[in-house]
Parts: sequence; structure tokens; C-alpha cells
Amino acid sequence: MEDAAGEPGRCAAVLPAGGCGERLGSSTPKQFCTVLGRPLISHTLEAFERASWIKDIIVVVALESLDLMKAIIHKYGHKRVTLVKGGETRHRSILNGLKVFSENRSDGTANEKPEVVIIHDAVRPFVDEEFLLQVAISAKQHGAAGAIRPLVSTVIASSSDGFLDYSLERAKHRASEMPQAFQYDVIYRSYLQCTDYDLDFGTECLHLALQYSNVKAKLLEGPPDLWKVTYKRDLYAAESVIKESISQQLCIITNVNKDAIEVGFLLHESLKLHFKVKAVSSSMCKTIHHLQNIFHGQCCNFICINVKDSDFEETQNLVDLLQTTNAGISYPLVILSVHSTSEDYSSGINKLIGIRKLAKEAYKSNILVYGLLINIDQDKVQLQQAVCEGTAIITALIKDRNPALVGQIMVA
Amino acid sequence: MEDAAGEPGRCAAVLPAGGCGERLGSSTPKQFCTVLGRPLISHTLEAFERASWIKDIIVVVALESLDLMKAIIHKYGHKRVTLVKGGETRHRSILNGLKVFSENRSDGTANEKPEVVIIHDAVRPFVDEEFLLQVAISAKQHGAAGAIRPLVSTVIASSSDGFLDYSLERAKHRASEMPQAFQYDVIYRSYLQCTDYDLDFGTECLHLALQYSNVKAKLLEGPPDLWKVTYKRDLYAAESVIKESISQQLCIITNVNKDAIEVGFLLHESLKLHFKVKAVSSSMCKTIHHLQNIFHGQCCNFICINVKDSDFEETQNLVDLLQTTNAGISYPLVILSVHSTSEDYSSGINKLIGIRKLAKEAYKSNILVYGLLINIDQDKVQLQQAVCEGTAIITALIKDRNPALVGQIMVA
Repeated sequence: MEDAAGEPGRCAAVLPAGGCGERLGSSTPKQFCTVLGRPLISHTLEAFERASWIKDIIVVVALESLDLMKAIIHKYGHKRVTLVKGGETRHRSILNGLKVFSENRSDGTANEKPEVVIIHDAVRPFVDEEFLLQVAISAKQHGAAGAIRPLVSTVIASSSDGFLDYSLERAKHRASEMPQAFQYDVIYRSYLQCTDYDLDFGTECLHLALQYSNVKAKLLEGPPDLWKVTYKRDLYAAESVIKESISQQLCIITNVNKDAIEVGFLLHESLKLHFKVKAVSSSMCKTIHHLQNIFHGQCCNFICINVKDSDFEETQNLVDLLQTTNAGISYPLVILSVHSTSEDYSSGINKLIGIRKLAKEAYKSNILVYGLLINIDQDKVQLQQAVCEGTAIITALIKDRNPALVGQIMVA
Repeated sequence: MEDAAGEPGRCAAVLPAGGCGERLGSSTPKQFCTVLGRPLISHTLEAFERASWIKDIIVVVALESLDLMKAIIHKYGHKRVTLVKGGETRHRSILNGLKVFSENRSDGTANEKPEVVIIHDAVRPFVDEEFLLQVAISAKQHGAAGAIRPLVSTVIASSSDGFLDYSLERAKHRASEMPQAFQYDVIYRSYLQCTDYDLDFGTECLHLALQYSNVKAKLLEGPPDLWKVTYKRDLYAAESVIKESISQQLCIITNVNKDAIEVGFLLHESLKLHFKVKAVSSSMCKTIHHLQNIFHGQCCNFICINVKDSDFEETQNLVDLLQTTNAGISYPLVILSVHSTSEDYSSGINKLIGIRKLAKEAYKSNILVYGLLINIDQDKVQLQQAVCEGTAIITALIKDRNPALVGQIMVA
């Protein structure tokens, strides 16, 4: 990135991830707890990788988590990451992270020194690129910048015997959140000058810049999604937020058969009240590039309208396509294999038993396949009713994304 | 409750519920947002009703929400509630709530003045009776008491131009949460004495007691579940917390038929790794009292092992029993209608189509009925595998509690 006004210059990030997660009530440190099957820290890394102008991502982990972290980086293919061993406290870990730009490693190499360094928590996965850029630019201009949020609770001080001493006026104070960013020289110098007491008991990087470099950080109000995953309920919330965000769009794959077109059309009309829907002809869907282009990125939800009730060809083709590109690596994908039947219920369903085997195979690649049977041999009103129920079932399966139900055949 | 040491004396509660929920990004005030189909405030009222020693519950709502609140109280049968019209601000609403104990209404009546009054937010549904009692007793002893929690973020003050002014040492400060409790005379006197500025811009009741009655509140560290539902993600978290809490126990209803016993036994063994399971003979399950006694309270999840694959008798009986007692009023109940079959898949499933009608009826009473078919005509290893899959399906359906899938027949 050009070093012009309004741009942050060379940028790096340090993510301290050495915490032990005691507040979560779990033996797994929270940054390694899985959300939709993937460790939280991998979600956070993805948010940083989206910002291609961040050239180096330093992840600081406890010695005992080093192998786990290497495995996560390998499995999810994270790029631009340097792993550094953590210190006893958060501040000591951040300092270790900052050192990789100033001290040579044992092999004589060092990471190129950035102009601006962003510091962020591994357990705040929902930071967006725009806000990262805003904080980085502000840091370049003012020396330091940090995210703030309004206080949800009033803050009070207690006396040593556990009684109210005083309360702070809520409107005059803010919660200091992450990300924060600093001119590298400002924050590194501050860390080198600060005391052992700061390193052992301090919690605020902005404070170090103020006290040791006399730099007053610019405070930027961030979006509510910056919150820190601290308690078990935050993991629930994080999972729901991610599920919601990957359940926005839907790709309907259909072919030119008359029945398939009719069911596909009716479903499309009904589903577009709940999703951003794109319809694709199955003949157009031979390469993953085509599918990706449709959404300018990743789509996690697919409806395959199959021609015959006994035929999984469309669904199998899509599974193959998604498997070859490892498309399920980041999030579990959902495929609804929709079959229209004009036979009675049990004959229709009997021919679909094979979907269980297909679903079991697909699940190995994090692809969740469910069956949906719609009887088209009904009058217009009944068919419309079935499409309505089908839409509710599809919406439910996509939102819940539950692996225990793959291979089941729902009936609308 | 006797007015002895260690007991709070006559106790009342005031729940300000006049907020407008702007931080939630929703047009519905957050206390009226539904969680598992029920308004958040009804969940909170339930928590207070459990504490029978709280004699009066004053709910303060905005004028425009009065009818809605009346409807909620009627629908969920809330007891001991007095509705009061809110003021412009939180403090003015609390004052209106406190007045019902000191000022006669237009009809000349007043609520009996309590010794201790608990103040709590309508949007903190997870307060437990034990902590309420602890706060009330402490208030009786010290005049005032309030819940605190450690700070998750460092608190800072900003200068008027948006730069860091100073940061507070996190370890020396606490977040002031709810519930709080006061000797009634202390808090009412404080409210009567405080200024318009306090009433319009203040946020902290403990502060009023300190400033105007010179009472230093005792601070009690509360559990993390006291958190305040503020953002949309908090609604997600609240829903997950409730779902988890009502998915702990499971009642298996079976009869003495040999096949039913075998499947019931195998499922019991497998399910008890995930739930607290009680098994009941269907002959014992003729009254709701029996079912309630089994769990010393409400059970929200049932497995009915049906004798024949074509027979819903056990399931229908249970639905009838739960409907007559309106058992689904508080939370959606789940019934898994389990059918063992020795026929081929499609004949087995064909006989079960009738479950869709039963499920549709039951859903009107907030009872979610799902079908599960287990083929028992298999060798021991295959049967064990089917029971394993059945357990995963049951667990998933109970945890998700998804209404769109009622009446569907899953196959293990």
C-alpha cells in the first residue's frame, strides 16, 4: 500500500492469544474453542487476512499451545502468520510479538519493521476491514488509536471491606476495546521503557503510550460486534452471529425439465423472502469459478432441484464440485436435495434412501446434505402450501446447520 | 417470611421496563422481544415468582406498552404483579414504582409497604432465587446492597476532542449490575431528596442511597448470568442459555412389550450420556402429577417408545396429558415418537404418515412432536449403530427445538 495521506503505510498486526480462558469455565482456552467446528482464533485470522494491506500477522501463543496453533494454521491455510512464544502476562506477550520486528531471530532474520502495528485480541473475531483501516490510519496520524464502546453498566469503586466507595458518571467514561493501533516506534519504545509492574499488572496499551511516549490515543467508537468472547454465552452468541451471516444467500440449481422448473420457480419465489437467492442452470454449474462468480465470493447454501425422484445426479455433481475445491473448509455448507414426486409418499421416499450414503460421504468434507420431497401431483393450492412448508423446512435446516440430521428426508 | 436474622423481612421488587431498546437495533423494546416464543420480561418475572418470599412485583412500563404488558401477564398467568406507568427516565420510572407503597391510588388503596425492596432490570432474566435472597438480606442489614462483576474491558475517560484522557486501573473497579436491594425507607427517601439532574441523567441507585441517605451499599459479586440483554447477540445468547437449561432432562415413556423394552433400554443407556434420564412405564403415566413428581418440577423433553410402528397411542396419550395441563405454556416441549420396525423402510415409514396430523395439532399447544423410526430387524452391531444415530438425532432435535421440523419422520 502506498504511503500516502489517508493510508496507513506498512502495517502489521499482533494478536496476543496466550490467555487461559478461566472465565469461560472451560479447560480449553477460549481462543481455541470451536465455533461451527472451527477454532475461534481461525475466525479472527480470517478477518485479518481479508485486509491484504496487513503484511504480517504475529500470533503470540503459550508454549503449550504452539503445536495446536501450527496445526490450525496448516489446516485452514492461514497466510502471513508468524508464531511467537507468549510471556507470563498479556503485556509481556504483546512485547514478545513486537520484538520480531526489531530483534533478529537465531537464524539472523527478522520481520520487516512496519510503520503501524495493530494490536487485537484473538477472541474478537468480528472486526471488519474498514474499521481496522480506520484505526490504522488514525494511529499513523496521531501515534496511537483505539476502539471504544459506551459502557453497558455503571462503573464503581469499592472500599477494601467490600462497600461502595464511589460510582463513576457513566456518560463520561467508555469501555476501551480492541483493535488498537500504534506507530510501531511509539508502542515499542513505550514497552521497552515501562516497569515490571506495568508488564505484570497493566491491561491497557493506550495507557503505556500515554505514560511513556506522551502520545494521546485517538479514540474511535467501534461497532458492537467488536465485543470480546469471554463467557460461555459469548460462544453461543458468536455461533449465532456466524450462522446468521452465512445464511443470507442461497443458490438454486435447477435444469430445464418442466417439473423441475415449476418447483424451482415456486421455491424461488417463496425463498427470496428469506434469502438473497440466485438461480443457476445446472448446465452452467460445471466449475466452481462459475458458482463463486455468482456471489462474488463464498456461498454456503445450495438447493438442488433434481429431475426424477430417484435421481441424485444434480446433487452428486454439486457435492463433487464443492469437494474438489475444499469449499467446506471455512464453514459447513448446506445442500438441500429437492425431489418432486407424483407417486405416493412411501414409494417416493423409498427411492431416496440412497441419499443417506451420499450425505455421509459429503459430511466428511463439511458438506451437510438433507433431502426434501415435494409432491407435485396436487392441485395448485395444495402445491403452494407444500412449497410454503418446504420453504420453512429449508430455512430451518440452513439456520440450524445441524450435522446430526444429514441424510434425513423431510417431506413438505 | 419471619422477620428473623438472616431473613429479609417483607420484600417487594421493582422492575423498570420502560426502555426503548435502541441499542438492540430493533423497533421492539428488548424486554418485549421473544426468546423461545416468550417475551423476555416474562422469563424475568418467572425468576421472581419462584421466590415466594417476594410479596409484590411492581413492573414499570411506558404508557404505550401497558396493554401489551397486561396481555403478557394474562397469557403466562403471572401472579403478584402490579403494573405502574413509567417516567421519562429510568430513575423516574423506579421512583414511580416505589410510590405505590407510599401513596394511595385514586381508589384509596396502596400496596403494603415492604421492609426491603429489590430493584432489578426486566432484561436480566437469569437471576436466581439464592442470589436475590443474598442481596435482600444484605440490604436489610446494611441499608443497601448490589451485585457487581469484574470489568471485562478497561475503562477510560476521553477528552472533549476525542483523545485519551486517562485510563482506570481495571483491578480497582467493578461493573455495577443488578439486582440491587434497599431498605425501602432508605431508597424512597433518597429518591424524594435527589435533584432533577439526578432523575434525568443518573444511572446508579446505589449512588443515590450514598449521596442522599449516607448509606454505603454492600457489594456482592454475582454470577456471570446476571448480564443485561443489550444487543442482538445477547438475545441469541439468552436463547441458547435457556435451550441448554431446558435440555438437561429427559423422560422415556415405555410399556412392557418386549421390542419396546429392548429399544427403550438401548436408547436409555445411550441417552444418559447426554441427559439426566428417567424411565416411566406408560401405565404409570396417566396423570400429569406423576410426571411432575418424577422430576420435582417441569420436564420439557419426552421420548415415547411406541409398541407397533403403526400406533401412536402412547404418543397421543402423552400429548393429551400435556395439553390438558397447558404444560407447554412456559417453554416449547419436545416429544420424540419412537417406532421400531422390522419391515422395510418404506412400509415402516408409510404407516407413520399420520404423525404429521398429530404434530400439527400438538404444535398449537407449543408441543413439538417428531417421529423417529428404528429398524430392529438387524444384527446386534447394526442395531447398536442405529441406536447411536437415533441418540444423535434425538439430542439434535431437543437442542434445536425447531418448530419447522415437527411431524417429520427421522430414520436411524
